[in-house]
Amino acid sequence: TEGYRLYPLPPTPKRDNKVLPEDLKTPDNHVERDPRLIRLTGIHPFNVEAPLSDLYDEGFLTTKDLFYVRNHGPVPRVEDFEVLDWQFSIEGMVENPVKLTLRDLLREYEQFTYPITLVCAGNRRKEQNMVRKTKGFSWGAAGVSTALWTGVGLWDLLGRAMPKRGARYVCFEGADRLPNGYYGTSVKLNWAVDANRGILVAHKMNGEALHPDHGKPLRIVIPGQIGGRSVKWLKRIIVTARPSDNWYHIYDNRVLPTMVDPEQSANLPETWEDERYAIYDLNTNSAICYPAHDERVSLVEKGVEMYKFKGYAYAGGGKRVTRMEVTLDKGKTWRLANITYHEDQYRDAPDGETLYGGRVDMSWREACFCWCFWDLDIPLADLADAKDVMVRAMDDSMMVQPRDMYWSVLGMMNNPWFRVVIHKEDSGHSLRFEHPTQPALMPGGWMERVKKEGGNLSNGLWGEKVSGEDDTNTQKEAVA
Amino acid sequence: TEGYRLYPLPPTPKRDNKVLPEDLKTPDNHVERDPRLIRLTGIHPFNVEAPLSDLYDEGFLTTKDLFYVRNHGPVPRVEDFEVLDWQFSIEGMVENPVKLTLRDLLREYEQFTYPITLVCAGNRRKEQNMVRKTKGFSWGAAGVSTALWTGVGLWDLLGRAMPKRGARYVCFEGADRLPNGYYGTSVKLNWAVDANRGILVAHKMNGEALHPDHGKPLRIVIPGQIGGRSVKWLKRIIVTARPSDNWYHIYDNRVLPTMVDPEQSANLPETWEDERYAIYDLNTNSAICYPAHDERVSLVEKGVEMYKFKGYAYAGGGKRVTRMEVTLDKGKTWRLANITYHEDQYRDAPDGETLYGGRVDMSWREACFCWCFWDLDIPLADLADAKDVMVRAMDDSMMVQPRDMYWSVLGMMNNPWFRVVIHKEDSGHSLRFEHPTQPALMPGGWMERVKKEGGNLSNGLWGEKVSGEDDTNTQKEAVA
Repeated sequence: TEGYRLYPLPPTPKRDNKVLPEDLKTPDNHVERDPRLIRLTGIHPFNVEAPLSDLYDEGFLTTKDLFYVRNHGPVPRVEDFEVLDWQFSIEGMVENPVKLTLRDLLREYEQFTYPITLVCAGNRRKEQNMVRKTKGFSWGAAGVSTALWTGVGLWDLLGRAMPKRGARYVCFEGADRLPNGYYGTSVKLNWAVDANRGILVAHKMNGEALHPDHGKPLRIVIPGQIGGRSVKWLKRIIVTARPSDNWYHIYDNRVLPTMVDPEQSANLPETWEDERYAIYDLNTNSAICYPAHDERVSLVEKGVEMYKFKGYAYAGGGKRVTRMEVTLDKGKTWRLANITYHEDQYRDAPDGETLYGGRVDMSWREACFCWCFWDLDIPLADLADAKDVMVRAMDDSMMVQPRDMYWSVLGMMNNPWFRVVIHKEDSGHSLRFEHPTQPALMPGGWMERVKKEGGNLSNGLWGEKVSGEDDTNTQKEAVA
Repeated sequence: TEGYRLYPLPPTPKRDNKVLPEDLKTPDNHVERDPRLIRLTGIHPFNVEAPLSDLYDEGFLTTKDLFYVRNHGPVPRVEDFEVLDWQFSIEGMVENPVKLTLRDLLREYEQFTYPITLVCAGNRRKEQNMVRKTKGFSWGAAGVSTALWTGVGLWDLLGRAMPKRGARYVCFEGADRLPNGYYGTSVKLNWAVDANRGILVAHKMNGEALHPDHGKPLRIVIPGQIGGRSVKWLKRIIVTARPSDNWYHIYDNRVLPTMVDPEQSANLPETWEDERYAIYDLNTNSAICYPAHDERVSLVEKGVEMYKFKGYAYAGGGKRVTRMEVTLDKGKTWRLANITYHEDQYRDAPDGETLYGGRVDMSWREACFCWCFWDLDIPLADLADAKDVMVRAMDDSMMVQPRDMYWSVLGMMNNPWFRVVIHKEDSGHSLRFEHPTQPALMPGGWMERVKKEGGNLSNGLWGEKVSGEDDTNTQKEAVA
């Protein structure tokens, strides 16, 4: 046991997960999983998020059971007895190329443990797909999870490998063999050698060996960047002069300009290869977790005058969410929510303290690597008078989530104000809350409802009818 | 002469500036200035911006003549013969406190020269003041300028001073004595010791000794952060455990939550002292420079079918502007503009190249320290059909300028879509363009016009009348 700590420790994970019946006929028939996870791309490959309330209820740290998964293909099978002999290389433009095993990594390098939130670039994509179908599958708002990661600093590894003059990128390649080759991507070398950025080569998650879905036995974990750069089942670290030419680096995890439509995008190789459109740092985002979708609240229960709204927020690139604001009148006025940054509690750990065999290396850090939670008590009387509740986060560069969705062909980085609609029911005695969407193909949510009613979801008013609205401009969305 | 360079050199500054008649009766009666500068706070203190077209026309680098100025009081008078003996200290929580002269700085430390854009946190504040009066004076969109700065790396100075355990902030104090003490502020020590952040202690601007308005003889220059942190007339660098308690650090350069109004703000000391609301990194912003305000364009000139829109954009904290988009239909559809990043040309300088006695230290840097320019040819026929043109920038964390203004009590960091209205005139034969505002108390701009016509500037539609609009919510703005 870990004894008393100043900071959160992970909730107890389930010990009785089994290989699920639906996985038996897939290449993942060796992977034990939690049946609560919602499958977003059919049975296989395994792309899942937790029910949003379950995710929030686990608290700051997410167990392996409910941590979101983005797999492009079959999970590489690595037996426990093979783990320590897992080999990976550091190669390319370095003075000292090297092949290392996980055993070497444990013996020869300093180990760190700290919390990092991972977010899929497609988090909240279902909302974009409701406006107009993208090329991506439908994440709800639970494509985000946090764990304590233990591993070696990439800056330390690269410092010993000694990058050569002219080197500017670090490519990562995994063991997952896919239709277009092994999964791979790259980040800037400048970031990789910077201890401030905190990129880990990690072998533990919440104090346990990595679960197969999360990269067993070794993966990259990059704080503040989209999950797609944190390569799992790590086999190669390649220092280069140019960004990765891996198919998945070029044709995934990009926000193309909004005017590029799916048909055009097939014939724009230069646009795809333009690094300006590649996503690295996360954008600032937030969601309402409570009230949950379809949650009902009585207006006539004695002594209950408030409802506590709760949710999460995050920013990218080490930035901090500095305020959360809530509107009940479509942005005319805002209320200030409370923010809890559990991550800051790790900064108070005594110097040199270790956890899971790694040093809790947070006291000197100014960057934020994790999500935060927000909450706000709202009088039921105010909710009864309102049509909807929306939230927005602002980060420490004073960038605020926008009212408008930025639609793009891959459907990524969706971060407009998160909106929950309020319905009065039961002769005005209770309220029912409606989230924008439900993940995957699950029905429900005001976006689907408004669209069915003929509303134009991109009219700047969430599809609500405005007298005098020019219907000629709704054409594009109507046919999508 | 500098000979051939791969990158821009500054335009020739004026040699014939004089002390202006209006300055003769002020404490600044020793400072020579360019009469084109627009005074934003009466005659004194000197707070000015250039006419937006003149600023743009100077190109990537701004001369001392048109570089914006934000002075809180009288300009300290430093004679040329005193410059080398100018003394400043590095003190507080350091192992090696030291007093240095500018002569020491030149003799004992490596010199760097690179371009940095400074931006006043109040840039574009006039637009906020039109919506509701803030506590700040009315900047137009020219509170931004770029120069080549020469000086010593703050990381180098602090490395030799050796900060002690527990140190977390660096305070700067200037020689400008003000009603509430010397001007002072602070940034995080972690940033100050990071060569990636590139903070300079600078003594030259565009290859010449600093002009008195810009800190003669020594100042801080912080890339990617608001100008208010780049202390001029530098006297003290103090390493501390806590943020600066200087009056100007606490009561200036903050974005309080939008619901705090001027009356409330007088009684909220804890809110003012909350570092979450202090501005460091710039947010992402852009403006249209051409067409200029009140510029007219003929629709019937033979052979002219296009108008080239031009302007600037910037992002903060080292981020890059990755796209500029232009809408002619209020955000329903967008066109992609061209972007020119002159700053990148300095990255191509040969290793070790010097300029103005400092090393051009850009080849290895991944961060962006400067504004960029954008342009887009738009068919006159499209302009004739449109009511307005709006632009927005997106940065490399995929944060985009918002449609909505974030109003706050000090009026800072204003960055909604920049909007120019199109008027058809001359029986439909020409177009006249109208910017949102003109700086200071200068009349003109669609915001003033719309307000006079009774429009609610914060209705999400730039004050345009919507049938069915709920007029009860316009009350707050109408009385402001």
